[in-house]
Amino acid sequence: MPELVGNLLVAQSGGPTAVINASVVGVILEAGRHPDQIEEIYGGLNGILGILNEELIDLQEEKRQSIEGLKHTPAAALGTCRYKLDFIKKPDQAAKDMNRLFEVFQAHNIRYFCYAGGNDSQDTAHKIHLEALKRGYEMRVMGVPKTIDNDLPHTDHSPGYGSVIKYNAVSVMEIGLDVGSMATDDGSCCIIEVMGRAAGWIAAGTVLAKRRPSDAPHIILLPEIRFNEPAFLEKIKETVAAHHYCIVVVGEGLKNANGEEMGVDKSRLDAFGHAVLSGAADHLAEIVQGKLDLKTRTVKLGYAQRAAAHYASETDMLEAVACGEAAVRAAVEGQSGLMAKIVRTSQQPYRWTTGLQPLGDIANVERTIPRDWISEDGFMPNEKFVEYAAPLVAGETRPFHEGGLPRYVVLEKFKVEKKLAAR
Amino acid sequence: MPELVGNLLVAQSGGPTAVINASVVGVILEAGRHPDQIEEIYGGLNGILGILNEELIDLQEEKRQSIEGLKHTPAAALGTCRYKLDFIKKPDQAAKDMNRLFEVFQAHNIRYFCYAGGNDSQDTAHKIHLEALKRGYEMRVMGVPKTIDNDLPHTDHSPGYGSVIKYNAVSVMEIGLDVGSMATDDGSCCIIEVMGRAAGWIAAGTVLAKRRPSDAPHIILLPEIRFNEPAFLEKIKETVAAHHYCIVVVGEGLKNANGEEMGVDKSRLDAFGHAVLSGAADHLAEIVQGKLDLKTRTVKLGYAQRAAAHYASETDMLEAVACGEAAVRAAVEGQSGLMAKIVRTSQQPYRWTTGLQPLGDIANVERTIPRDWISEDGFMPNEKFVEYAAPLVAGETRPFHEGGLPRYVVLEKFKVEKKLAAR
Repeated sequence: MPELVGNLLVAQSGGPTAVINASVVGVILEAGRHPDQIEEIYGGLNGILGILNEELIDLQEEKRQSIEGLKHTPAAALGTCRYKLDFIKKPDQAAKDMNRLFEVFQAHNIRYFCYAGGNDSQDTAHKIHLEALKRGYEMRVMGVPKTIDNDLPHTDHSPGYGSVIKYNAVSVMEIGLDVGSMATDDGSCCIIEVMGRAAGWIAAGTVLAKRRPSDAPHIILLPEIRFNEPAFLEKIKETVAAHHYCIVVVGEGLKNANGEEMGVDKSRLDAFGHAVLSGAADHLAEIVQGKLDLKTRTVKLGYAQRAAAHYASETDMLEAVACGEAAVRAAVEGQSGLMAKIVRTSQQPYRWTTGLQPLGDIANVERTIPRDWISEDGFMPNEKFVEYAAPLVAGETRPFHEGGLPRYVVLEKFKVEKKLAAR
Repeated sequence: MPELVGNLLVAQSGGPTAVINASVVGVILEAGRHPDQIEEIYGGLNGILGILNEELIDLQEEKRQSIEGLKHTPAAALGTCRYKLDFIKKPDQAAKDMNRLFEVFQAHNIRYFCYAGGNDSQDTAHKIHLEALKRGYEMRVMGVPKTIDNDLPHTDHSPGYGSVIKYNAVSVMEIGLDVGSMATDDGSCCIIEVMGRAAGWIAAGTVLAKRRPSDAPHIILLPEIRFNEPAFLEKIKETVAAHHYCIVVVGEGLKNANGEEMGVDKSRLDAFGHAVLSGAADHLAEIVQGKLDLKTRTVKLGYAQRAAAHYASETDMLEAVACGEAAVRAAVEGQSGLMAKIVRTSQQPYRWTTGLQPLGDIANVERTIPRDWISEDGFMPNEKFVEYAAPLVAGETRPFHEGGLPRYVVLEKFKVEKKLAAR
């Protein structure tokens, strides 16, 4: 494969995580190791939306310590978007957008393009890769996995997942101690809602808070298992009888017996046409209070859980960096149309390396928890899940602190001069 | 003052905090320094409720490392309660309970009694102190301050407060980065509900997340300031116009123009007869979405915020220990009917010491934020508040970790043999 010389563009897409910036750091570090092939290292602001608007920044102008600090900075430092190239519903707009993207790539001699994101974003990367081939525009397109949802196929897990379950598990552990210490004969219940629409990976991960059978969480409701109200109420009664309190974790996408999402507000849709979810926990709390007359409170961690870099997993952060590096390394070696992935090479002790997977295998495939990783009654992930998830939360990161709070990095964002007319 | 020889009993009451156990550690450590006066060190389970049931444990039997680990363990390791000696509404029960308490004190030769709690608990301690005097039962009764609400008078601040605002501030900072990185021209809003019924100290503390004027939080709604809907909506519009997003923090006890709590469910009452609060944030989100057509999400940190020992303030933890020590030291020196308090002796650099205040000055007095510590428009605490609050979050604690999660202490709870018939 002949050497391809030009500029690299990296962008972030979809919901942020605690470590998506660590992947960008991996991209920048690896790109810097190949100055003969990669001349400039640009960041696209707000994913492809910013690229469409030719909003590029020069990442080599940023301070060295900012790049280092990005490893510990949550959210998307380059900005992100949920903008989609939708050739099905909006074919004209999508074709126009695709043209514009290649105008921008060409104008800035972008020959390496790394896109960090989840399923929808890998689909976008895949489309750009196919379009480059079709146009005969030589550009190496690489996906970098990112999603708290852990629903990307082919990778052992996704960067972002270890950190969200570490934070959620410590939250469930601490809430369990709190509610348990308040519990008297009256009994009480706390329902903690976590993210996860189709897949219950995030909710399931809170099982790691449980060191003894009596510890919280006592019930985990997964979107994979249809809600069985009588069995659920029975389980709460048993738990309260045994421990005076019950901690329930629910994934926001929990479905009722008819397969309908229980916390859904059908009147609102997000940019991808999915219905907006709200209160699965509040809905359940009404049921528990109404039918069991049990004092019930809810916690909704919401955005806090995916941005909690103050308590990120060191393992997750290191893997996120490695995925960014692996993507660039493969591109420099001549590959394209692939996503970097994490491969588990040993369970005891946990060891991992990176691998590569064709983007076409990833796009729009959602992976859910295998049924045999969940207890028979459906209320708790079992030891197979725990064996899988436990290593992912290992190690604590240490963001730089000042005055008792993290000093997260805000990039200076040195704009690259525009070369095209506004779209 | 002649030496008083006997046993010490410590108990915890009211809502837990991240550092209420640190105060118990202070009590235990100081008690251990006075073996000539304090023979046994007992813990009462679940506050006075457990004492009424003669449920005492021997704290000297616990492992030394457990006592050390308690400094970093959230919630109430001895258990807590919201049980009240209510001489107004239930005088017969209260008189019976008081009799029983003194039977237990006498049966176990309790001569030192430390009660860690908030306003209601200091009131209980005060009543016990007065009763001891009336009965001529020689016992030194000391209050140890504890409340995330920071509404106790006479103490500069309360142990528990520094940690809750440190955790809430980092959460607001991280959510701000997350929502900000997702923000595009459409704009978006996130409303974060935090605890605080009558006083807005907790909500106000999240201002510490703000290092630049553009940083989150953009609006803080305090229970001290009646909600002004038009001004609120105008402020959101301005913020979204400037930054594409707006982060709002709301104290759960926010009141409307008529002084009614906005998130209140009047159909339910807690053990103290207060109405149960739920969704101030959800209520506001409906207003914002309905009137501004702005994508709005809510976060409800709930119990997570008061139990977040994984991110406690080291300053707060050290002050909590010191308050426990100060209470016992004063009791051993012959004092009674006092609460330990924190006295700020210097602002720059921040320095503090402990002091003492008569329990009668504390009970049932709630301290709110001075009006001149809040901006004129009422939407943000000002530099006077920041000067007050900033030192309280300084320093990070390091709970012992195992497998990527804290190994919090669970006491073994060696029961003290009962000497009385069941009540």
